[in-house]
Amino acid sequence: MARRLRKTSYLLEKPVFVENSASVVGTKEGQGPLGPLFDMVGEDDLFQTNNWEEAESTLQKSAVHLALKKAGCRTEDVQCMFAGDLLGQSIATSFGVGGFGIPLFGLYGACSTCGESMILGAMAISGGFAERVICVTSSHFASAEKEFRFPLEYGNQRPLSASWTVTGSGAFLLGTKKEGARARIAGMTVGKIVDYGLKDSMNMGACMAPAAADTIERHMKEFGRTPQDYDRIITGDLGCVGQKALIELLRDKHLDISAQHMDCGIEIYDGKEQDTHAGGSGCGCCAATLSAYILKRLEEPGGWNRVLFLPTGALLSKVSFNEGRTVPGISHGLVLERIS
Amino acid sequence: MARRLRKTSYLLEKPVFVENSASVVGTKEGQGPLGPLFDMVGEDDLFQTNNWEEAESTLQKSAVHLALKKAGCRTEDVQCMFAGDLLGQSIATSFGVGGFGIPLFGLYGACSTCGESMILGAMAISGGFAERVICVTSSHFASAEKEFRFPLEYGNQRPLSASWTVTGSGAFLLGTKKEGARARIAGMTVGKIVDYGLKDSMNMGACMAPAAADTIERHMKEFGRTPQDYDRIITGDLGCVGQKALIELLRDKHLDISAQHMDCGIEIYDGKEQDTHAGGSGCGCCAATLSAYILKRLEEPGGWNRVLFLPTGALLSKVSFNEGRTVPGISHGLVLERIS
Repeated sequence: MARRLRKTSYLLEKPVFVENSASVVGTKEGQGPLGPLFDMVGEDDLFQTNNWEEAESTLQKSAVHLALKKAGCRTEDVQCMFAGDLLGQSIATSFGVGGFGIPLFGLYGACSTCGESMILGAMAISGGFAERVICVTSSHFASAEKEFRFPLEYGNQRPLSASWTVTGSGAFLLGTKKEGARARIAGMTVGKIVDYGLKDSMNMGACMAPAAADTIERHMKEFGRTPQDYDRIITGDLGCVGQKALIELLRDKHLDISAQHMDCGIEIYDGKEQDTHAGGSGCGCCAATLSAYILKRLEEPGGWNRVLFLPTGALLSKVSFNEGRTVPGISHGLVLERIS
Repeated sequence: MARRLRKTSYLLEKPVFVENSASVVGTKEGQGPLGPLFDMVGEDDLFQTNNWEEAESTLQKSAVHLALKKAGCRTEDVQCMFAGDLLGQSIATSFGVGGFGIPLFGLYGACSTCGESMILGAMAISGGFAERVICVTSSHFASAEKEFRFPLEYGNQRPLSASWTVTGSGAFLLGTKKEGARARIAGMTVGKIVDYGLKDSMNMGACMAPAAADTIERHMKEFGRTPQDYDRIITGDLGCVGQKALIELLRDKHLDISAQHMDCGIEIYDGKEQDTHAGGSGCGCCAATLSAYILKRLEEPGGWNRVLFLPTGALLSKVSFNEGRTVPGISHGLVLERIS
């Protein structure tokens, strides 16, 4: 059960644990600074399939398999799955996880879906609907370029504000078992759509920063906390352009998160060496980083004790972009704590 | 809180009510047999916007507005929204409901999304996370043709097994208030992806029938009920081809639902007069029919006392179809009861 803190935040009175998790990434992510931490790095980005969409499905399938295996858990022990990706009609998910035969809730929150899936998963457990759920999200550089911009064969130029979609997936087994778990989900703040009227799909960091700022501001107010209450405030994929915008937007609201802020999109690549421009993005960016790096820091001695994890999503499609629409954003926040 | 009945079904011990609802449809639906029952029928299918996607967003916006107005409820009284549509990256939703400023969970379950949204909404309320949530889904004939088949201008021919995407939306205000409510959500069975290997996107009824059969079979087993325990067993949009397949599939499993079965896709149009081939389909089909017709029958004297409502979704995209993939299905089930 939850204790509601004003309107959009919850403190979980019946705790929910990240019992285990797994990350699977592509070659470029394997060569990046977090490379050695991922559970599995593909030999090539097709993952032995026939096309990019199947490759992305394989990422999800492998991440779920690995998370269950690491936890010593069978599919029959999982009551439901919360899953999503970036592709039209979420086909990476439909063809990726159907075979597990687990009751499924398909989600779409663009790159915020990892946070959305974990909030809904935690609600299902804390509300008494499940003992164990699995949350999985993915993205793939090549399927995303085809879906949102141009097929790779076109060889288009990318401005420096553009981000690089991460080929990766993270799967999280949430449950009630504290023993051996990686972290505790202590609370959450649900995202709202925020639209500042920006239209540049090659600068999604700036488009999503207002949504992250909105969720962080509501979170601090509703929990009665300050940025100092967190070891890190971690956004999904704002990249370096979005990071600047976020810190400035929050400064205007008298919140200084410059000492605590970290962005998965900045961490996952070496921006200078890997030519990834503003940083990494995509559903898989924060999911893989959470599993491989953030949860590790919440486990290891001398690491972090409490972080605010905020996947960020840009709600656009090729159609909405071509019709001249804006790029609204959404960001879902989760409080993750070290298990004491 | 819930009482779990085996693995995939829940009996809600803390009841959840459909406090109010609204339906908004296009001209063709207004001319159909349910026409006089809808809350709002558009004057034309553009709903005074510039393109089909904006028109679909307007459907969602109007349905939510109307549902809140009928309930005498302000947006501030609603803790969260569960919403989705059929378009790539759910843009009808992103541009339709963002303005309400309600915390949002975006969903994708193809045409099953109406059921998915109501299951998750009921979980949020029954689990103590909200007093009131709103669930909304939509589809639009022209935006769906463009998304899944061909733009209308192409004038393609359609086989008789094809369905006609409903231009419509249904919004449902779920809450804890029994007084004045339209129906009670008494239980639910969560859908699984079922893939029989069918590949014909012009015969989605047949593609989705196995998923509906799977959910109905699990539901009856887990609740310990028979079809006779329901006044109607109502699928979302199987149409007349899918209906036949469903009844036969269940007969093979020793369940005869032929006396109870009804399909929203068959009810919403006059198949002979309106040239809609197999029947209506789309997220808006079962949502609008639920609000306008099914809930009415659960309210009026001499109507129904208990129905099993099963929106059905076909998990395909233009890309998966062009890549020669199958069309898996999913169906989420809800038990709706008359308020005694």
